[in-house]
Order: sequence, then C-alpha cells, then structure tokens
Amino acid sequence: MIPGPIECHEDVLEAMQTGATSHTDPSFINIFGECLEMLRVVLYSSGQPFVVSGSGTLSWDMVASNLVEPGEDVLVVSNGFFGDKFAECLAAYGASVTSIASMPLGSTVALSEIKKALQRRKFKLVALTHVDTSTGVMLDIQSAASLIRTISPETLIVVDGVCSVGCESIRMDDWGLDIVVTASQKAIGAPPGLSLLVASSRAIETFKTRKSQPQSYFAAWQRWIPIMQSYEARKPSYFATPAVQLVMALNVALKKLLNYGMEKSFARHQEVSNLVKDTIQSWGLELVSNSRASSANGLTAVYYPGGIQATDLLPKMAKRGVMIAGGLHPAIATKYFRIGHMGTSVIQPDRLHIETLLNALKDSLRECGFTF
Amino acid sequence: MIPGPIECHEDVLEAMQTGATSHTDPSFINIFGECLEMLRVVLYSSGQPFVVSGSGTLSWDMVASNLVEPGEDVLVVSNGFFGDKFAECLAAYGASVTSIASMPLGSTVALSEIKKALQRRKFKLVALTHVDTSTGVMLDIQSAASLIRTISPETLIVVDGVCSVGCESIRMDDWGLDIVVTASQKAIGAPPGLSLLVASSRAIETFKTRKSQPQSYFAAWQRWIPIMQSYEARKPSYFATPAVQLVMALNVALKKLLNYGMEKSFARHQEVSNLVKDTIQSWGLELVSNSRASSANGLTAVYYPGGIQATDLLPKMAKRGVMIAGGLHPAIATKYFRIGHMGTSVIQPDRLHIETLLNALKDSLRECGFTF
Repeated sequence: MIPGPIECHEDVLEAMQTGATSHTDPSFINIFGECLEMLRVVLYSSGQPFVVSGSGTLSWDMVASNLVEPGEDVLVVSNGFFGDKFAECLAAYGASVTSIASMPLGSTVALSEIKKALQRRKFKLVALTHVDTSTGVMLDIQSAASLIRTISPETLIVVDGVCSVGCESIRMDDWGLDIVVTASQKAIGAPPGLSLLVASSRAIETFKTRKSQPQSYFAAWQRWIPIMQSYEARKPSYFATPAVQLVMALNVALKKLLNYGMEKSFARHQEVSNLVKDTIQSWGLELVSNSRASSANGLTAVYYPGGIQATDLLPKMAKRGVMIAGGLHPAIATKYFRIGHMGTSVIQPDRLHIETLLNALKDSLRECGFTF
Repeated sequence: MIPGPIECHEDVLEAMQTGATSHTDPSFINIFGECLEMLRVVLYSSGQPFVVSGSGTLSWDMVASNLVEPGEDVLVVSNGFFGDKFAECLAAYGASVTSIASMPLGSTVALSEIKKALQRRKFKLVALTHVDTSTGVMLDIQSAASLIRTISPETLIVVDGVCSVGCESIRMDDWGLDIVVTASQKAIGAPPGLSLLVASSRAIETFKTRKSQPQSYFAAWQRWIPIMQSYEARKPSYFATPAVQLVMALNVALKKLLNYGMEKSFARHQEVSNLVKDTIQSWGLELVSNSRASSANGLTAVYYPGGIQATDLLPKMAKRGVMIAGGLHPAIATKYFRIGHMGTSVIQPDRLHIETLLNALKDSLRECGFTF
C-alpha cells in the first residue's frame, strides 16, 4: 500500500510472464496499438500517445528536450518534491526556469500566484504537478489551465500526472492540456518500467516547428512519432526494442481500467480516499495536505503522532503484512508516512486491502504507544 | 530465433510475474545489488555498473551525454546500422563525430583504418560496435582497443556490446575498455526493458571532471551513481522507480549465465554458431558477413537464395513454429534474413531449438522452390 508501484491484478502479472515475443510480431503490434488507443480514452484526448521503456522521470526529459529550446522561459508550479525535480530537468536542457512553490508545505500554489507569474513574463510552457507524491497535495489543474489559456493562450500546458492518471479526473481536450505524462506503476495498474505520455496536436506542432534539434537521442520525438504511428496503423517498425512483456501487461491493465470505467474509477478513488483520510483524522492524526479540497485521492500523507518514528511504525505494519512508505519531501522526510490507495486495492473491495490497511495501522499505532 | 528479444528460461519468466514489491524493500535492494555485482563478473570488470529502465539505445545517450562535451571529437567505428545510429546519438549531444564505416558491407573496419584516423586527430572517445546486429559482423575489439591504447592512451574506449555481452568474450579490465553498454534481452537472457552499462574508473573520473553539466536529466550519471552505490551497499535510495520485475528477472538470468560459466558460454555460442553457419553454407547460401573470423557467434545473417523473398520464407518458418527476423541494414534490408542463436536456445541443447530451426529452414527453403 505504497503510492506506487501498486498491487497488480493477477491477469496483469500473467501477461508479464509471456514467453519471448518479437517486437515485430503482428500479435504484439496489435497489443501495442491498442495501448496507444486506450491511453487516448483514459485521458479524454485526441492527441498523440507515446509508450516508451523507462520510468516516469524519462517523460520529463521528453517534455524538456522536445518542447523547449535553450534559453526559453518556462514556469514550474511546484507543490513539492516532484515539481522541484521537474524544474531541475527543464533546466538541464537549457530552459530558463521560473519556479513558484507552494507555501506553506502541504498547500497548493494559489491561482493568484500563477496569474501574477504569467502577467510578469511570457512563458513557452507551464509545468503543473497534478498530484505531488511526496506531499499528497493535488492542484486544481482544470482551473489552472483555464487561467493560463485566458492570460497566455499560446503557452503550452504540461501536466505531470504520474500519481493521478487513472484515479483523478483529467480531460485533456476539454481542459486544453497539451501534455500529460505518467508511468505504468501507479493508478494505471501495471508494473514499473514504462514511461507514458500523451501530446496535443498543438504540442506536436510546436515540436515540429522548433528551430534547433532536440538535445537528446533516446527521448527525441522525431524518432518516436513514426514508431507510435506505425504501431497504431498495425505496421512493424523499429527504433529501440520495446519492453514487450511490460507493454502486454499495460494492455491488460488499461483494458481492466476502461472496463471498470474512468468516471467510476475517479468516484471510487475519491470515496476510498475520504474513508482513509476521515478514519485517520478521527484518530487525531494530522495530514500533510492541509485542505481536503486540495488532497490527492490516490494517496494520503500523514504526520507521525507525537514521538512515533518511521522505525517504530513501518516495521510493525510490515509484521502485519502491510507495506506503507516513509516520507520523501526533504523538509519533513522523517516526520511523516505515506499510504497509497490506487488501482486494484481500491476498485476491488473484495480484496479487503483498505480494511486490512486501516486495521493494521490502528493496531500498529496502538503497539507504538499511541492512545486512541 | 530472432537476434533478440531471445527466449527466456522459465525461471526468468517466473520472476517477471512477481507481485508488487516496493523498490525500497530490503529483498529487492539485495536483488538489485546482486545484479550490479554479477554484471562486473560477466564483463571481467572492476568498474561501476548501471542498471536503468530503458532500452539498449538509452545506454548510448548515457555515453554521449556523460562522457562527451559539446564540440569534442569522437571517432565511431561502424560495421553497420547500429554504428551509424550510435554516431547519430553522439552528434545529437553536440559531439564532433568522425565515422569510419566498413567497406564493403559485411566486413569489419580494418585496424589500419582505425590507426589512420587516430593519427590524423586526437579523439576524446572511440565508439566500437562489437557485434552489429544488422549484419552479423563482429569487430576484434581486443586488437582495436590495444591499438587505440598504444596510439592514443588518453582516448576512452566505448564498446556497444548489445549483441555480444554474454555470448562473446569481453574482458573489460584486461583489454582496457572504458565502457561496455548492453541490454537485457539478448545473450543475458532476460526480457527487454533494461539498459545495462559498466564504466571503468577512468570513465567515471572523466565524467566527474567534465567542465559543463550533462545535457540530459534521466541519463545523467550524477543522479545514477549514488543510486547504484546505494543498491550495492544494500541501502535504500530513490531517483526514478526501477522496473522491479525486470530487475528480478535480470537477477535470475545473470545467475543462470554465471552458473553455466562465462568461458563455457563463449565456447558453446561459437560451437553452435559454427554449426549453423556451416550447415547453411553447405546448402549453398551466402552469409552477409564475409569472413568467419569476423562473424558474430550470437546471430547469422544470410542472403535469400535466388528469387526467394522475405514474404516467401518468413511465413513458412512461422508455420513451422520458428520466428526468424528480416533484414535491417537499409542497403540490403529486403535481401537477407537474420537468425539469432543466443542464450537458453544455445546453452540448453535439450530444448532442440537449433535442430528445430535448421530443419524448419531446410523444409521452408525447399517449399520456396530452393533445391539442395
């Protein structure tokens, strides 16, 4: 029950152990093509999907190397660790980065701050972390996108959806998002190892009309766009060997998600998130995110109650068969823990993952000396 | 029987379907640490190993972005498609690339040509493709490295071992190789999705003393070196979520390879390669590589005999349950086919993969109208 990699359905794991299959086998080409088509549905997008071997982090390189030219101004709206790192990535490719961070920690950046930044300078691109996996905070990207579109309509809107795609409402076309990046191992429900990205036609056009060549090879879109188009047209093509079994697992995971239904998934994640947060707060524990309206539905970050430490609580949880995660944000890393509630643990109540988690947490806290 | 992804042992596939495991779980940290230690043994190296989510191609980006600064001179010794692409990758990161290509196609670059190039200019780095998967040609990297060390001792020696590590003799320390890059899905015997690299201490030192920052984020070593050192010290750390199941599969594959024995693996691959090549040549077919001494032992590239085409032969092979690959080198792509003979198909004769392959090939050729 960590905020990714999450538990995978048995059918997803079954796909992982498929025997060697050529990356140009017609059956695999179809599986890959279906993944691309399904990603569009998951994100309510008419854009160009990419599925590439790598981690979610690689998708930042795709954004930074393909959409920004050296010296261009970008704005990063950071709600925690991952926003700060995305800013580092953009800077590594030569972007001139302006960052606005949420203050205090546990809040999101106010729309008024985004507005001020946009009024001061013209940005090629704004990067928004939808859910910061380090703090459990969620930005209202629909409102942020609407604001950006109004003040600076040419600015590309990039959303880091690593910890939100599949469990939080995202409507790329309707909200005018240009890029959503994510990874396979969170609410999508597959094992880690795939970097996923969907780009609007406007983003692809921006790439195609750039003046300089992208300063990367593996991440450069001129190599991947023809490959993705070939897979979708069910034609063989080759740039770099795809992670065949992971793509097969992704296919199964996406089919399960779409069969369940996106809207139903968003509602169910919110329901379970509220249950987890209500229960933990009813015990007197404090959440890192300081408002329910700006809390993620796929994870909960909780401060250890008085005197209890990671080395007390986490092993007691593990003894009860439940793994949760320690803190990640450097400012408070030792002071809080994180619980993931995404995917199969949430949408299949018969697994009793949530009940098991909450019971184990209650018993472990009691064993640590916490009184309810 | 394509030249990668190759058949995986059932135990490797079993590891692929392991349920969700945290990337900071002590059991996984140990598995990752063991992979790094085993890669050193596989390559007879005392260097720094890297295991990163991605494909073999990503390891080129690691070399180009970490070891070369913009404008620096590099020499690429290309024996086919993959050498040409490595040159493109180096150029994408700003290297000033000199390429020497083998002429005619099917041969390797002569050592005298490498010598001439080295005498004309000082190179920061020389990139050698050990085995070119498009032509089945193998360069004598031991002699090439010795020559480079003699003429230009400061030059870093980089070997693309994607289609050679595990099945061809490589001794990094003894031969003075600074980098060997490879991928999980060839003679290593795991599924695709991992980029593997081992760097000499001299290469790491070159990286640490570079003047400019690497123009990449996901591939940049300052982020990965501490992670690899932590895993090897059996300590948790985080930069980007590793492909947990693939790393588990890699661990099983590397243990199998080392249990079999590296020297035994090299000898067995050579024996099987000779059998395949002798048999095919005895039928009167012509190999793409024009000398046995410079032929790869992990694959065989063969020209279609008179009039026969890919669309004739490949489906007839598939009907017999054997998948082989078409041509890849653009100059002759439609004129030849490729057979992979690496890993479990080679070192486990009881699987009868080689006999099945040769029988299917003989029967399919006969069905195409070829007379023996």
